[in-house]
Amino acid sequence: MSSTVDAVAELAGVSVSTVSRALRNVPGVSLETRKRVQDIARDIGYVPSLAGSRLATGRTGAIAIVTPNLSKWFFGQVLASAGRVLREAGFDVLLYEVADTRARERFFAGSSLTGRADGVLIFALQPTPEELATLAAQNLPVSVLGSEAPGGSGVRVDDQTAGRAAVRHLLNLGHERIAFIGIRQAADSTLGGVPPASRLRGYRDALAEAGFDRVQEHEVHEENSANGGSAAMARLLCAEVPPTAVFVASDEMAFGVLRTLKAAGIEVPGDMSVIGFDNHELAEILDLTTMDHSVALQGSETARRLLALITSDAGAEPDLVLTAQLIVRGSTAPPRPLRGRQTATPLA
Amino acid sequence: MSSTVDAVAELAGVSVSTVSRALRNVPGVSLETRKRVQDIARDIGYVPSLAGSRLATGRTGAIAIVTPNLSKWFFGQVLASAGRVLREAGFDVLLYEVADTRARERFFAGSSLTGRADGVLIFALQPTPEELATLAAQNLPVSVLGSEAPGGSGVRVDDQTAGRAAVRHLLNLGHERIAFIGIRQAADSTLGGVPPASRLRGYRDALAEAGFDRVQEHEVHEENSANGGSAAMARLLCAEVPPTAVFVASDEMAFGVLRTLKAAGIEVPGDMSVIGFDNHELAEILDLTTMDHSVALQGSETARRLLALITSDAGAEPDLVLTAQLIVRGSTAPPRPLRGRQTATPLA
Repeated sequence: MSSTVDAVAELAGVSVSTVSRALRNVPGVSLETRKRVQDIARDIGYVPSLAGSRLATGRTGAIAIVTPNLSKWFFGQVLASAGRVLREAGFDVLLYEVADTRARERFFAGSSLTGRADGVLIFALQPTPEELATLAAQNLPVSVLGSEAPGGSGVRVDDQTAGRAAVRHLLNLGHERIAFIGIRQAADSTLGGVPPASRLRGYRDALAEAGFDRVQEHEVHEENSANGGSAAMARLLCAEVPPTAVFVASDEMAFGVLRTLKAAGIEVPGDMSVIGFDNHELAEILDLTTMDHSVALQGSETARRLLALITSDAGAEPDLVLTAQLIVRGSTAPPRPLRGRQTATPLA
Repeated sequence: MSSTVDAVAELAGVSVSTVSRALRNVPGVSLETRKRVQDIARDIGYVPSLAGSRLATGRTGAIAIVTPNLSKWFFGQVLASAGRVLREAGFDVLLYEVADTRARERFFAGSSLTGRADGVLIFALQPTPEELATLAAQNLPVSVLGSEAPGGSGVRVDDQTAGRAAVRHLLNLGHERIAFIGIRQAADSTLGGVPPASRLRGYRDALAEAGFDRVQEHEVHEENSANGGSAAMARLLCAEVPPTAVFVASDEMAFGVLRTLKAAGIEVPGDMSVIGFDNHELAEILDLTTMDHSVALQGSETARRLLALITSDAGAEPDLVLTAQLIVRGSTAPPRPLRGRQTATPLA
């Protein structure tokens, strides 16, 4: 096998290491060289073995992905899009679900990644300086999705601006009583908590800028699921002054909000406007206005940046901060004037 | 480090290998021994290194999971539940998404798993005898989810019986014109195709047993997504004899079916009964009657069986065939008599 890789290298006039990179589609090889190497390899029937390419590059050929949750929609989407980029570059994916602090500690302290992975993708966890130092000590480049990564390369959404934009949309429609349904995290959750908190800040910013006071009972937090959204909306319906519109921090929660409103006979958007966050594929089905935050792009771009760190010495690119886009559908509209506060006119 | 593992072994009166297994929660160590070893390790402050346990057991400490799709609901669920079992046993997860035949060939032929994984979980792919032979040649135990695994250990649902049960529910409500919306697969999809085909067979069985002829235009196949379901339902609405009920092979497709019916002003269940398949968490939100096929159990049980193959010499357990359960919600009801075929009575 190694004599064959030597043959490809000789015929192509490049080093064995370049052959290895070219055949694994790792960046750092010109398109022309890559094409020539691939053609020659095909012509002489050389199939690169992973072990061989590992020897040539001193790499393991694997990337570790750390994520707090595998079954939630968001993580499936970013995992799929990041996985595609890594696979196309010839890397395997080592998956670590760190659902609680114990698992998180075990990942960062207990087991060493040396010899198992060439780099680490961190999804929706805010790594501590100590955790980043642990990885740096193992010479592992890091790319972080969803939070800032000092010293690493990060991709995230400006959640505060996105939250502000969602609420501005409701304000511009004429709503004055706008509630917020946020994501409550379990006490030992490893989720960074940064995006949910930023969305809440954006909500408060928009209300303050419009001159409205903060109403405590209009801020409700529940677990990030349809059932959580249902429960949160039910609480808002018991408020002393019920809202006419609600900004929900995830589409899955918003689906539950819609259920509660339907069960209560409250018309959307006539009696209640609802805006979500995600642009989940079922948001279109349910005609839900929402904020699209380019979830697939977040995954693929985080992976691409890690590959760049591994294969070049250029250092970390500056953080990429994406702007979420409002997707207007049928769940938001101007409030019905006086509706629900009408005084019945006596008939006689 | 290795002197410390020796100390734990000596204090516990067991072998180093047993210490390694006990601390990784690998089966094959009695609960009592495991507890004793863990207590001693904690007392003397010994943290097992993965590399150490690998040396002691001759294993890589990783399991490869092969799946055709990471972003679909079903795969997120089985990945999360299988991942939990593997992690608790101290194994890492190596993830391979083989979305097309090229990726599939590369996985089974191109790269060797020797030295990278101790076993393979195959999700919703029907492995060929050659593919299984490749893995067997590498001494890799295999556990298969969703299709039969000759020589391996498999977990699957009796999809034919489940499809038959779904249609029997509609027949028992009094429906006589029942359509089927199935999953169409891309030409180069690696998806086994077994479950979708079995659900169709169950549909045909139930109709035949009830004495109804097969209606070609009542069998429609589309891609497995809400949009696919929308398109399929729209086609059924153009049928020469439209159905009064429809069995949809996945809940995500059924969500699209509900959208099309709503847009067309067709009442569910009054004018059209709809039954899905999955018990997706949003099925409850949308009040969708569906077949629950224990998706989380499928994932965890497939993983548990693989661990048993790795850690004991007992050989493969017989395949586990699960029975899906009907979950009755508000989207199925008896057909409205004559509705839609009523002749208007002239007023005079």
